[in-house]
Amino acid sequence: MARDIDDLPKLDANYMALTPLWFLERAATVHPTRTAVVHGSVHYTWEQTYQRCRRLASALSRRNIGAGSTVAIIAPNVPALYEAHFGVPMAGAVLNTVNIRLNASTIAFLLGHSKSAILMVDQEFFSLAENALKILAENDNHYNPPLLIVISDKSCRPESLKDALGKGAIEYDKFLESGDPEFAWKPPEDEWQSIALGYTSGTTASPKGVVLSHRGAYLMALSCAMIWGLNEGVIYLWTLPMFHCNGWCYAWSLAALCGTNICLRQVTAKAVYSAIANQGVTHFCAAPVVLNTIVNAPKEETILPLPRVVHVNTAGAAPPPSLLFAMSEKGFHVTHTYGLSETYGPSTVCAWKPEWDLLPPIEQARLRARQGVRYTGLEGLDVVDPKTMKPVAADGKAMGEIVMRGNLVMKGYLKNPEANKEAFANGWFHSGDLAVKHPDGYIEIKDRNKDIIISGGENISSLEVENVLYTHPAVYEVSVVAREDELWGESPCAFVTLKPGTEKSNEGRLAEDIIKFCRSKMPAYWVPKSVVFGPLPKTATGKIQKHVLRAKAREMGPVKKSKL
Amino acid sequence: MARDIDDLPKLDANYMALTPLWFLERAATVHPTRTAVVHGSVHYTWEQTYQRCRRLASALSRRNIGAGSTVAIIAPNVPALYEAHFGVPMAGAVLNTVNIRLNASTIAFLLGHSKSAILMVDQEFFSLAENALKILAENDNHYNPPLLIVISDKSCRPESLKDALGKGAIEYDKFLESGDPEFAWKPPEDEWQSIALGYTSGTTASPKGVVLSHRGAYLMALSCAMIWGLNEGVIYLWTLPMFHCNGWCYAWSLAALCGTNICLRQVTAKAVYSAIANQGVTHFCAAPVVLNTIVNAPKEETILPLPRVVHVNTAGAAPPPSLLFAMSEKGFHVTHTYGLSETYGPSTVCAWKPEWDLLPPIEQARLRARQGVRYTGLEGLDVVDPKTMKPVAADGKAMGEIVMRGNLVMKGYLKNPEANKEAFANGWFHSGDLAVKHPDGYIEIKDRNKDIIISGGENISSLEVENVLYTHPAVYEVSVVAREDELWGESPCAFVTLKPGTEKSNEGRLAEDIIKFCRSKMPAYWVPKSVVFGPLPKTATGKIQKHVLRAKAREMGPVKKSKL
Repeated sequence: MARDIDDLPKLDANYMALTPLWFLERAATVHPTRTAVVHGSVHYTWEQTYQRCRRLASALSRRNIGAGSTVAIIAPNVPALYEAHFGVPMAGAVLNTVNIRLNASTIAFLLGHSKSAILMVDQEFFSLAENALKILAENDNHYNPPLLIVISDKSCRPESLKDALGKGAIEYDKFLESGDPEFAWKPPEDEWQSIALGYTSGTTASPKGVVLSHRGAYLMALSCAMIWGLNEGVIYLWTLPMFHCNGWCYAWSLAALCGTNICLRQVTAKAVYSAIANQGVTHFCAAPVVLNTIVNAPKEETILPLPRVVHVNTAGAAPPPSLLFAMSEKGFHVTHTYGLSETYGPSTVCAWKPEWDLLPPIEQARLRARQGVRYTGLEGLDVVDPKTMKPVAADGKAMGEIVMRGNLVMKGYLKNPEANKEAFANGWFHSGDLAVKHPDGYIEIKDRNKDIIISGGENISSLEVENVLYTHPAVYEVSVVAREDELWGESPCAFVTLKPGTEKSNEGRLAEDIIKFCRSKMPAYWVPKSVVFGPLPKTATGKIQKHVLRAKAREMGPVKKSKL
Repeated sequence: MARDIDDLPKLDANYMALTPLWFLERAATVHPTRTAVVHGSVHYTWEQTYQRCRRLASALSRRNIGAGSTVAIIAPNVPALYEAHFGVPMAGAVLNTVNIRLNASTIAFLLGHSKSAILMVDQEFFSLAENALKILAENDNHYNPPLLIVISDKSCRPESLKDALGKGAIEYDKFLESGDPEFAWKPPEDEWQSIALGYTSGTTASPKGVVLSHRGAYLMALSCAMIWGLNEGVIYLWTLPMFHCNGWCYAWSLAALCGTNICLRQVTAKAVYSAIANQGVTHFCAAPVVLNTIVNAPKEETILPLPRVVHVNTAGAAPPPSLLFAMSEKGFHVTHTYGLSETYGPSTVCAWKPEWDLLPPIEQARLRARQGVRYTGLEGLDVVDPKTMKPVAADGKAMGEIVMRGNLVMKGYLKNPEANKEAFANGWFHSGDLAVKHPDGYIEIKDRNKDIIISGGENISSLEVENVLYTHPAVYEVSVVAREDELWGESPCAFVTLKPGTEKSNEGRLAEDIIKFCRSKMPAYWVPKSVVFGPLPKTATGKIQKHVLRAKAREMGPVKKSKL
């Protein structure tokens, strides 16, 4: 059968590779004089940002960086990191954003693994980079040391810059000067071409390199703007590290929206409130741990009431309902999303229903704590039995694994066929998170696969125990893991940070009080048998490192039978 | 060179054909009970709409309608037309939306040209369809008569339905009953597959069939939601015909936004005001001619002041600044966009700058009357010399042709290689519209290529003459075309509709007054030499048919030398 109706070819005029790079060119054309990036007293317009990015692309091209190359960057949320999101792919290369809180040996691993040919590093992290390169040189004979570019910042100690320049690093702005501000960059020939690489924290095995495509980055940039109702010209505060999934792709959304990026070197409650009060910020993203800091900030660090509604997108860990409640009491409008590096950042949202506005606030917080439904740009989301791939019943009880598929799923892990095979088994991406599906179709995470506690053959969601503990008035932060138990196999062990001002001498009494509190609010077998006080170990994005706590629990040995 | 970083395959889990069809499935999952479509007393939720669309797809599949088939529909903005936007492509077929104001012989041509296998027709238009099929049967021996489906509507005369059923047409709801509400539709295998077909009005030659892809429809649906700042759950009034470029792809945007579609069989000022007052409408699209009706509506048909800001997206013809000013005075917030059927509807927008808020309203209207800058989803827009393809100077004076390229450009014209060659020459789509580029990069249409008036070797923009005429207090509508002129070759001839209440006996005096008015406001050679009063001929989308007026001007013969 002739199919005239489909028989029209793709042409230069009607088909182009999807890429977020055009957004920047458009922003510079439409709003050349609007402020694009602010960092302290440094302000760049969209026209300047576009020129700086073209200079970067040009300077990289002149160093033979192009398709197939990887450029690594170690930096907090400063303008150079924003510019790298455009300048590096404009040269055809892939941007490898490095988590600034990793240690030197992990950074050495991922620089070697990604074969990064250029390393851009913020002056504050120069010695970290230097150490990483030393380790790399010792372990890998084939690795060519990358060209070192140091990003200077007047707010940092001048010694670190001097040190870097003394050791042969090129200053970033000098490097830009070597590039052409009118550089005729080319979009990728194929939208499947890679745009970014980001390594997972690798809590158990080696870090895995998540590879993202131009196509996916474009679609995510639009999708995550749409899902949050971001408007043209939004003023966005960079609390979320840009190195983390490219700031959930908001780096590119902001260009599509011709908005304003407010940079932030160090995230503190004071800095966030100050940016809201002084820079017109209306939106920011943050892991629950940051929200916890904002909610519990001492009064003198806050600026309340807020001058306007401020919208917060939170993901990275499941936020306890009590935290969501406290945020809304302060006037923040929280959107709860969920996802992974492997899904370009969040790709589910707890889509709000107007009818929920009538519910009591604490009930609203409970609904909002659910991970919700898929993003507009994600084609498939379900909770399934990972073996049979059969969806679980939508009863809010049956647990299964969250799986996703579609255009907001990564290309794959770099040079890791084993991990890819596992992650993409049966035509879906496997998140490793355990959840239930409620009768209204909204999913709710119960635990990471490996975080579930199995006590006397019963599954206990560590998350649900934590959610109850968060409602205890003395608890600031909590994490619950499995501890070996002579009688039950495993039982819950709670690691708790107390609110500031709690007397250390009170800890014994408080541990008892917390256990008593739990008994009144949850099934007996959920109640933690052990409560340990102290600060909690965290990843760069504020996720509590449960594997460290599990190791601590192991050191404590099993809960004795006699304890009953 | 090995390119590990790009070397990751497309899989079922991470790559899917882009299609707006998923938006519907998502809306039905996320907001099953929210109202999706309203038509008088008929209300459908998103769940019901999804089921009805699946029934339609299933019923079509059972009639062997699938990939390569075309389904035509002749209907005003009623629920069935909305459903066809999903149900037809869910069966794999292409939706051919027919302009309801075409005559029977043109409809015959395009049904034959598109080989439409099914014809869905609103009961009010059944006899029109019948006549078209008769003409077709007489002229084309190879054409199989399509299956006729009649869409009933309680608000229409029952005779037309009876007539249709008597002649063997199947009632639409009956047809749906023959389909499975759980039909397992499949997305297209290739996103380049065609989703829709729409014929241009074909003022001079045969109508041309504009073919759109799933990919383009998806990208336009997101882009046009974003450009207008549409939020989740928007309440949208269907003033713009859905048959016209699929309602500029808003048919699909509304599903992506889980919004509410308010249908409208007949667009009158009263109906628009009533929908705003009673149905919570916040957004609608309309050609300037509709805005003119709204602005000039008698007081008893309006509901003013508006209960809230109502957003209007206008395109289809260049709106005179005076009209934009009048709209904003009534409390409407107008966004001015521009495009063609060939660009999925509008693909440029007069992006508003906050600093313009401080300008006097009439100056704002003048700025807003420009066609502006490209949509986020359009990769290329320029004004060029169509021969050399060199961009014109951005001086607001040099004229050139508007050209576009990228993912918001059609696949091509159906079975029309000649027209495709011309339209896609030199790697760009040629709009045929003449414009200037201002120093700020915003483009402004001066005329259609063929509408320009050449008087004594000088170009006159008919549009600019019209813009001045629109500021005359007695002028309701105006269109200026070239009339043969013995001395100057051509000179402007103005066709004018006067505001209601103007005495016919005054016309002679008014013609003189209008010419005098023009003399005081424009160069002498722009001033119309002839003014003709009467109603203006229009296309279905409210565009004034200048070719009809040109024919009238031809009938009038040349302007005599003696007239000077």
